[in-house]
Amino acid sequence: MKGVIATRAPEAVVVDVTHGIPPHAVLVGALVLQQAVPYFPLGTVHVGVVDPGVGTERRALCIVTHAGCFVGPDNGLLSLAADTAGIRRIVELTDERFFISPRSATFHGRDVFAPVAAAVAAGTPATAFGPECTDLLRLHLPEPVRDGSAVRGEVIYVDHFGNLISNLTPETFPSGKFVVSVEGTRVGGPVTTYGDVAPGTTAALVSSFGLLEIAVRDGSAHDVLGHGAGSAVVLTPENGG
Amino acid sequence: MKGVIATRAPEAVVVDVTHGIPPHAVLVGALVLQQAVPYFPLGTVHVGVVDPGVGTERRALCIVTHAGCFVGPDNGLLSLAADTAGIRRIVELTDERFFISPRSATFHGRDVFAPVAAAVAAGTPATAFGPECTDLLRLHLPEPVRDGSAVRGEVIYVDHFGNLISNLTPETFPSGKFVVSVEGTRVGGPVTTYGDVAPGTTAALVSSFGLLEIAVRDGSAHDVLGHGAGSAVVLTPENGG
Amino acid sequence: MKGVIATRAPEAVVVDVTHGIPPHAVLVGALVLQQAVPYFPLGTVHVGVVDPGVGTERRALCIVTHAGCFVGPDNGLLSLAADTAGIRRIVELTDERFFISPRSATFHGRDVFAPVAAAVAAGTPATAFGPECTDLLRLHLPEPVRDGSAVRGEVIYVDHFGNLISNLTPETFPSGKFVVSVEGTRVGGPVTTYGDVAPGTTAALVSSFGLLEIAVRDGSAHDVLGHGAGSAVVLTPENGG
Repeated sequence: MKGVIATRAPEAVVVDVTHGIPPHAVLVGALVLQQAVPYFPLGTVHVGVVDPGVGTERRALCIVTHAGCFVGPDNGLLSLAADTAGIRRIVELTDERFFISPRSATFHGRDVFAPVAAAVAAGTPATAFGPECTDLLRLHLPEPVRDGSAVRGEVIYVDHFGNLISNLTPETFPSGKFVVSVEGTRVGGPVTTYGDVAPGTTAALVSSFGLLEIAVRDGSAHDVLGHGAGSAVVLTPENGG
Repeated sequence: MKGVIATRAPEAVVVDVTHGIPPHAVLVGALVLQQAVPYFPLGTVHVGVVDPGVGTERRALCIVTHAGCFVGPDNGLLSLAADTAGIRRIVELTDERFFISPRSATFHGRDVFAPVAAAVAAGTPATAFGPECTDLLRLHLPEPVRDGSAVRGEVIYVDHFGNLISNLTPETFPSGKFVVSVEGTRVGGPVTTYGDVAPGTTAALVSSFGLLEIAVRDGSAHDVLGHGAGSAVVLTPENGG
Repeated sequence: MKGVIATRAPEAVVVDVTHGIPPHAVLVGALVLQQAVPYFPLGTVHVGVVDPGVGTERRALCIVTHAGCFVGPDNGLLSLAADTAGIRRIVELTDERFFISPRSATFHGRDVFAPVAAAVAAGTPATAFGPECTDLLRLHLPEPVRDGSAVRGEVIYVDHFGNLISNLTPETFPSGKFVVSVEGTRVGGPVTTYGDVAPGTTAALVSSFGLLEIAVRDGSAHDVLGHGAGSAVVLTPENGG
């Protein structure tokens, strides 16, 4: 992909956000992209490829937003970031003149998304790539569930440090004080930062991504607790529930 | 290595192709490099370092081709890409004035290849680095074997997604329809893309690299099948064999 | 972090040294940084983030040296490199106008260090960021211990290749010939490079970083020997001890 961009948009500055999204984890990629975009310059071209449906009927898109342009598969990967940035126009990538030819059936990152992103970076308007469309496939965080006065969420992924990242944002928290438990293990109320607890202690806190996470200071919550994606995370008001 | 290049060729644009080649896997590195080169601009300087023989008698080379220049160890790593690109000149790196001094015995990437690549990028002709030579160590994919009407190959590596990449190219396929099996497990005939089979299903297809691979849709063939490098991949004509 | 730098210092060339430091391994990060700095251009801005104490009272620093500027946490990560380069000035990062606002409690790499590094790259003098200070937290390699005529060190980390990197530098070696053993297993005397022993053989050698390492040629010493961080490495003069 970088070779294609270097060839077709030699002036473009290419920045790797991450190569660490687990295979097929479209939602994780969507969350990471959503969190990264606000820190990049306006007008940046964002290319995302977590693309298990490559070669199927899933469309390829260029989404023009108020923050910049998004190029990738229409599988939800771009949807969280694009909606947050404010969508101005969605174009389906159909004009094969922009693609690498012959196009492989399994690596559209290289053969479709990279050359289109290079064309955007080189000044081609999005409307050149194909017809405008009005919708895209949207992903959503699994919705937390109210359970009496408690709120029940889940671990959506385990990050590089072994932190368990949940689908719980501050807007979903119970009012007042509450304690966090993961698969029945009580972790305590949320703290502000890792240093608020002793080394080796498990704690819940709101990550730099705005999602509640369970962490072990100077350690790996994944290793220590044995929990991972799908594990239940429950917030219970401190006065019972 | 990037520091050396930034110091000696500050105008050069440095692109990481991959840091994911398994340790000592020269053939895998050679294949990845061969596949990547056609997508980079003509004149690119390609530096490759999978170098288990560092510090031995193995030579260090700069190979000038019609696609650009290759710098690295003479252990076959550059050979597939250089031959595909069309070799114009091979130079052995002997002139120590271009190296980092003192040169370590274990990291020629930093001390030999990076500074020479920087010199090439900055305009030094290859002939400045040492004597021309006429040969290089060439790697080859293990040759598939005819077994009656069947063709027997093997898994040469497992990629990041757990796909089993074989040494079988379309030129080696039996004529007519055939089925693929890996270590005796029948996978079926080759499909065009992952989406042609149901999630969780094993399938064989020709990868974006031109090699037959065994994949599990939305999963890892390595994890599901338990096979890896060296496992037998057999193509059997559908009418028996 | 790269988004912040691209936004605030668009002319800066950003180079990844490594994303492979194990979580929380401040000393390993400090060693890698110390070794990398001499190969970068004078005046480079080095940002390091191995930051288990983020959000605690640990300070954030900009250290001006004769090699360039270092930005990161005051947990020792920068100390080996900065002392080697020669410290000219230490400034505590306190002026919030340079930070991303609101600042997260858990990711100062993005919210504090990257924007300050961008400001340095864009020409802001270090003294703008806060008060000068006279000290920093310094890390040291664990000190090797004399044990009669032997020298006893330890494995401080396992690198990407499975090599066991010790705290023993040539200055700490016994005079005369000696043999290396790791957790009681005799490895033999140090060799110059991997190629000096047969494939599969264990050997000791001084790495490109200047530290004694135990390696297995074309293999992983970590896998073969089963030893890792903390394992004893003993140097015994050949005439006994």
